[in-house]
Amino acid sequence: MAIAGGAKLCCPARTDPAKNRSKKQAKLAEKAQRKAEASAKPTEAKPVEDIASPDSAEGLDGTLSLNQNQDRSRRDWILINDLSPADVGRNVLVRARLASSRYQGKLAFLIVRQRIHTLQVCVAVGEGATSKKMVQWVSEIPSESVILVEGTIRAVKNLKTTTVRDVELVAGKMFLVARAADTLPFSLADASRAERDYDQGKVQYNRVLLETRLNNRVLDLRTPTNQAIFTLQSAVTHLLSAFLQRKAFTEIHTPKLQAGASESGSSVFKVNYFKRDAFLAVSPDLAKQMCMAADFERVYEIGPVFRAENSFTHRHLTEFTALDLEMAIEEHYDEVISLLDDALKEVFRGLKEAYRTEIDTVRRQFPADDFKWQERIRLTFEEAIDLLVADGMDYSQLDDIDTTNEKRLGRIVRNKYETDFFIIDKFPIHLRPFYTMPDPIDPALSDSFDFFMRGEEILSGAQRIHDPTLLGIDVSSMQSCVDAFKLGCPPHGGGGIGLERVLMLYLQLNDIRRASLFPRDHKRLTP
Amino acid sequence: MAIAGGAKLCCPARTDPAKNRSKKQAKLAEKAQRKAEASAKPTEAKPVEDIASPDSAEGLDGTLSLNQNQDRSRRDWILINDLSPADVGRNVLVRARLASSRYQGKLAFLIVRQRIHTLQVCVAVGEGATSKKMVQWVSEIPSESVILVEGTIRAVKNLKTTTVRDVELVAGKMFLVARAADTLPFSLADASRAERDYDQGKVQYNRVLLETRLNNRVLDLRTPTNQAIFTLQSAVTHLLSAFLQRKAFTEIHTPKLQAGASESGSSVFKVNYFKRDAFLAVSPDLAKQMCMAADFERVYEIGPVFRAENSFTHRHLTEFTALDLEMAIEEHYDEVISLLDDALKEVFRGLKEAYRTEIDTVRRQFPADDFKWQERIRLTFEEAIDLLVADGMDYSQLDDIDTTNEKRLGRIVRNKYETDFFIIDKFPIHLRPFYTMPDPIDPALSDSFDFFMRGEEILSGAQRIHDPTLLGIDVSSMQSCVDAFKLGCPPHGGGGIGLERVLMLYLQLNDIRRASLFPRDHKRLTP
Repeated sequence: MAIAGGAKLCCPARTDPAKNRSKKQAKLAEKAQRKAEASAKPTEAKPVEDIASPDSAEGLDGTLSLNQNQDRSRRDWILINDLSPADVGRNVLVRARLASSRYQGKLAFLIVRQRIHTLQVCVAVGEGATSKKMVQWVSEIPSESVILVEGTIRAVKNLKTTTVRDVELVAGKMFLVARAADTLPFSLADASRAERDYDQGKVQYNRVLLETRLNNRVLDLRTPTNQAIFTLQSAVTHLLSAFLQRKAFTEIHTPKLQAGASESGSSVFKVNYFKRDAFLAVSPDLAKQMCMAADFERVYEIGPVFRAENSFTHRHLTEFTALDLEMAIEEHYDEVISLLDDALKEVFRGLKEAYRTEIDTVRRQFPADDFKWQERIRLTFEEAIDLLVADGMDYSQLDDIDTTNEKRLGRIVRNKYETDFFIIDKFPIHLRPFYTMPDPIDPALSDSFDFFMRGEEILSGAQRIHDPTLLGIDVSSMQSCVDAFKLGCPPHGGGGIGLERVLMLYLQLNDIRRASLFPRDHKRLTP
Repeated sequence: MAIAGGAKLCCPARTDPAKNRSKKQAKLAEKAQRKAEASAKPTEAKPVEDIASPDSAEGLDGTLSLNQNQDRSRRDWILINDLSPADVGRNVLVRARLASSRYQGKLAFLIVRQRIHTLQVCVAVGEGATSKKMVQWVSEIPSESVILVEGTIRAVKNLKTTTVRDVELVAGKMFLVARAADTLPFSLADASRAERDYDQGKVQYNRVLLETRLNNRVLDLRTPTNQAIFTLQSAVTHLLSAFLQRKAFTEIHTPKLQAGASESGSSVFKVNYFKRDAFLAVSPDLAKQMCMAADFERVYEIGPVFRAENSFTHRHLTEFTALDLEMAIEEHYDEVISLLDDALKEVFRGLKEAYRTEIDTVRRQFPADDFKWQERIRLTFEEAIDLLVADGMDYSQLDDIDTTNEKRLGRIVRNKYETDFFIIDKFPIHLRPFYTMPDPIDPALSDSFDFFMRGEEILSGAQRIHDPTLLGIDVSSMQSCVDAFKLGCPPHGGGGIGLERVLMLYLQLNDIRRASLFPRDHKRLTP
């Protein structure tokens, strides 16, 4: 049957038919085999084994005998980024995305892509096992289809358009694994273009708007930029997690379904829970605090939190991933600040050391300055206000630091201390949740802090009130927590880091949706 | 002021007052200091520094001068499990939970607890810095209070009632950090008792019912059993996560808020989402599949999933933690089964090697056989049915394997293969979600599998249909996914592991609520 007709290479069903098949099944199999041979449909599974069988150019123009129940070939399928001149002459098997193709009569040059890496594939009549018919067939495969290529590695010199620059693959056989639609919502080339190309280029490029990207997020996610962004997202949680494990933290999973609405004043989603109301957690704060009363000493959680934010900003989502931690305090809430400061610097260091390729990949589309940090830079809220006033901020704004002034402060601090990362603590207590520990000297202040990256808040935390008497009586929303404190709870503090914000600001992506796999805001629930 | 009056040791507010305080703040501080000295309230913060100051027995009966704004002492606070005879004579500082106490006139023996470890503390008139008044004060501290003890390590021989058996702490000073209520819902001793103690003992013990425990979960979580269970829960995710990272998986975070109801037939919770309906994800299957179409190749997620199960069983929760993964398939869906099999065995091996203490701690309350596994044991659904029929199962039950027969099968397989861990695959397709890949030979079967521990399902997975045509038209609930497949998607498969089930079955806890920090079922939304 013709591969070109849209046949897919699927998996045969059994590892060891002789071992795993009853007589009944064997009979069924025989029957199915006969039926299949008579009328092979494009949707039926095709074996991979045939690729490895020695034949001429037949594979390329798609004549495969139907063969559904073989063992696995267990050949090595290679990653193109592993290729080097040492592989010249080697016969390899590559599954990849067809990124683009150029045809010149008897010759076709393809660029194939695996995540952030690309390789040139050469299909030429007279080379490998190819015919003119095959080059023709290849030329008709739509971009963004998944193809399987078997061929030989050949040395080339300094290719400009691929990430693998010193070798190419000379195709012997090629198969279509999954065909992409002939027309796509946008091209990957357009989706991968940097803003500066629009501004500086002479060509009139198609600009792919964020809304269009998010409506077609799967296609958008295929850009090397997005592949790198989500590798980096995964790296942030791993670096943080490894650090916290070394510091004796226990990873926990707290319920997102809660009986009470919100303890922190954030807007909350209501859930129909077996004929009564439940609410989605806006943070794991209360559960973390109960873990402190339950002797866990140090806990962290990486999981979703939900905020019913009915507004559209570049930095709010209705669902995001929080990196939350809570720890018992021995002497001073500075222990919490130190630990969080060390944790984030561990992340920054880890990204810089081990993810250069991914960072550079993102920067080609989103240019950014290197992220700078120093030994701990920590200002009190009052000192921050003083800096802003000295910079010309209006006195009417002394009460809080709004988003605009946060960014302004970021610029001031960067100029003064050469850092994109700093801490503000001792916030006025009226700006913080009511379970925040007041300052022992000035009752108008609190033992609370925010961390900033490039002038935007990425972490909010505090020492919490662990004494049920001090917490007061108006606490119905955190009754479970108050009950826990009555059982005796050590002093403790913690904070929550917004994963997407860290990523957005580290990479200067300018919109938090770019740092979320399938973002949710007040309007968006799909894909 | 009197420590015995319920004073807590809190943290002073600043690391470096000279550096961080403006003049205004300094004035405020002075004022507050004077005010505080005049009328120190029990809820005001007490410094830790005083403990380290040289004094006589005063610390013990609670006379601390108010001192709120000192630097941290930065002394080492020790973990009792780190103590050994090498520490004899050492002066140490320990924060711990007061587990129990015995008094004999001038002498008190306390047992203090840190998570799963316990230490004997000796308070004796004439030893350390103690007076009869102090022993009296100590005798009035309620069990489960948090205390701080400074004293000297002394050698002892073979203590029977503590985990630290060769040393004890001779108290010099003692402080109350957080007072527990005088009456507790149950005692930790009762909550820590094994079932067999009720059956065999002569004493009539109080049995603490699961419902009572869960209503007072924070207290319940303090038992060494529960401390160990949640250390092991954390270990399971770390072992799995480390394995998957080595296998080139990217960790992802998919939205729990979805526009469509359920793709798998599970019951779903409805959320009020800005005047329209959203639904909580019953699994990340669709998002994982979209990642396959988006070239991620291998992804996993550890996060909550939600099932509106309106029933009460020992193994269902309305919210649980799923360890989900999805991977592109090169040749055969056995690649997925192999990887999952290796991943779980890595977890079993890791627990056995590095968490012996925790496993033994749990076993003292929940006796269990060692968890056994072998090289891959994999039966087809038909073979499993044959085993059950040979064991006497009724022929009317051939269609599916219910919970009772699952357990029966578990016993049969354990007897036959000496394993608590096995795989069933090739389920009849009508038992699986409609997006499961059909067997290429027998269309009544599917390329799907379940994994079992001790005869209960812990993982369900399959190769998925990646071809939009084969998936058919009745797919409105997974429209985003179908759209993604039209962009070309490689063959892929995956599965979801229930974290709490793995823990429950590995440790034989008999109820899944015991493996969930704050469990949620159709009746329970708190704590």
